[in-house]
Amino acid sequence: MAPPSVLEAMAAPLLGYLDPDFLGVLADIRGLLRIAFQTENEWTLAVSGTGTAAMEAALGNLIEPGDRVLACVHGYFGARLADMAARYGADVHEIQREWGEAFDPEEIRAALRPGIVKLVTLVHAETSTGVLQPGIPEIAAMCHEAGALLVLDCVTSLGCVPVTVDAWDVDVAYSAAQKGISAPPGLSPITIGPRARKALEARRSPPPAFYFDLRLLTTYWGDTPAYHHTAPISTAFALREALRLVKEEGLDARFARHRANAELLWKGLEGLDLPLFVTRKNRLVPLTTVQTPPGRDEAAIRRRLLVDHNIEIAGGFGPLAGKVWRIGTMGHSSRVENVEALLKALGVEMRGPA
Amino acid sequence: MAPPSVLEAMAAPLLGYLDPDFLGVLADIRGLLRIAFQTENEWTLAVSGTGTAAMEAALGNLIEPGDRVLACVHGYFGARLADMAARYGADVHEIQREWGEAFDPEEIRAALRPGIVKLVTLVHAETSTGVLQPGIPEIAAMCHEAGALLVLDCVTSLGCVPVTVDAWDVDVAYSAAQKGISAPPGLSPITIGPRARKALEARRSPPPAFYFDLRLLTTYWGDTPAYHHTAPISTAFALREALRLVKEEGLDARFARHRANAELLWKGLEGLDLPLFVTRKNRLVPLTTVQTPPGRDEAAIRRRLLVDHNIEIAGGFGPLAGKVWRIGTMGHSSRVENVEALLKALGVEMRGPA
Repeated sequence: MAPPSVLEAMAAPLLGYLDPDFLGVLADIRGLLRIAFQTENEWTLAVSGTGTAAMEAALGNLIEPGDRVLACVHGYFGARLADMAARYGADVHEIQREWGEAFDPEEIRAALRPGIVKLVTLVHAETSTGVLQPGIPEIAAMCHEAGALLVLDCVTSLGCVPVTVDAWDVDVAYSAAQKGISAPPGLSPITIGPRARKALEARRSPPPAFYFDLRLLTTYWGDTPAYHHTAPISTAFALREALRLVKEEGLDARFARHRANAELLWKGLEGLDLPLFVTRKNRLVPLTTVQTPPGRDEAAIRRRLLVDHNIEIAGGFGPLAGKVWRIGTMGHSSRVENVEALLKALGVEMRGPA
Repeated sequence: MAPPSVLEAMAAPLLGYLDPDFLGVLADIRGLLRIAFQTENEWTLAVSGTGTAAMEAALGNLIEPGDRVLACVHGYFGARLADMAARYGADVHEIQREWGEAFDPEEIRAALRPGIVKLVTLVHAETSTGVLQPGIPEIAAMCHEAGALLVLDCVTSLGCVPVTVDAWDVDVAYSAAQKGISAPPGLSPITIGPRARKALEARRSPPPAFYFDLRLLTTYWGDTPAYHHTAPISTAFALREALRLVKEEGLDARFARHRANAELLWKGLEGLDLPLFVTRKNRLVPLTTVQTPPGRDEAAIRRRLLVDHNIEIAGGFGPLAGKVWRIGTMGHSSRVENVEALLKALGVEMRGPA
């Protein structure tokens, strides 16, 4: 859910996409995103689409046909990055881990062919499995040693757990609006570091999608904006307000709140004999995966939670379909009362028939 | 501007992208878009981005590298379509007309190499010049005779003037939300006819952008939806409400209202000695271009209209920079009081110094 002031911002009267007041909104978003991503990157903006659009912007701008991409796949979104890279004509090599596990950085090092791999794709927080990939700064350093760029999917980490783009030296990081930031979906944060910017400026051909062309987008989002496309105006009002709330709370306080509510949830689920799916050291704070109760109709339980209790939890998909539930405690929704309401409702379900 | 009930819809609490209530919203949008486009096309939906995203979806899905595209360019958006087609690897041939003119269908026929051209791109309502392209059914018929598909940009025509996709036999038509439909930008209507669908299903390779892949999008928007991407939820609430208002007013009444307000504007501008830029027979009802007054600082006048009178009119761009103003009377903004307020404010400006 989004905070009330964020939803209210959506209903403000529209402005033109080059109206000086609207350009002020974009400038605010740029500045606030630098705080959220903990970066000084000049090329920090929001792509006019939902999270998948930011993935497209990252890969579509950096890949030229024939480029070698190392895709680290340990869940659905890692696999999606591999698929996308192939669509842009990359020569994609994959390394894989079981869904529910994280990579050991040494596995990535072993697959990095120095001077050959241009781009490494990696998911920081796998929404399909509930795994947080550790060791990002080490992985970034080994990518750079091998002459490769690191693209990091932070869709479910930004605003929930630390994403320190500059300190980790990540080349491209992107996210979505509706998870840790708690704005309505429709504008998706992305930040481009100096190495990636250089690679992008050295392209031999323009990226296929004009709509996602970062050289043009950074002009619209820059100091002397010119028309490129119509931005989603209302969604920008809401994103600014949501990011303002992130800044107001403070990143450390926000991360501590997410952690405390996740710990409360984990303890409660274990108390209901629902085993957590991911080992503690790789467990993702804002999205918890838990094994579904054996012999029960898990989809029916989720349906009743939604209809009778107004609580939405997600099912598993791919190899985890039917096997796990995915429970989000992100941004505005990471609250003690939400965790308690879910545990109470699940407690009733676990005792009842289904 | 958007109607109050549309802005209110933006502030409704969020739903999940697979929540049955939200899937009902998508189904409503599908049905209402068929009314707006006057089509029975099953593949009728809204792309999760602003108008340029719908252009990408149209071209990115239909073009494979090496395909011959005939781009009809008589303004900025025609040129953008040619640029986009080239980015997707098309062999683009252009025919051109001066900005401010329309094509004679015979010019298009002469450029159509039967059996060679796969796709013709044409702008129905050129937002950069204020021209409405006449003769669409004739042009569609000659495209089909030559074995080509017709992609029609209806960004500034849908909801303002007739766009009868089935009667005209247009293969792909797309639009934006924030013009004739008067919803906030962020979801963009597109409809795909049977010939285009067949071409799309016969592709040898997937389109570069997963985000715009219509075979996948039509599954999410279909009768048994599966996850593809997170839709812009709030924007969908607003688009549904805006389309409901279009249906409630009725297309004929809506077109008559646009026409009457445009006639009022045209008469008033001529009364102020501001000559209209486009000849009457090609003049676009929802967007009027008028020559700027000679010897005056046209940008200063526009700035004062915005700051002192809260009226935004647009300048010209490309070859028309400084030469024309572009005045929108679209959707909810096509109202007698708006036209009168602008004429009054312009009257003051035309008498005053600058």
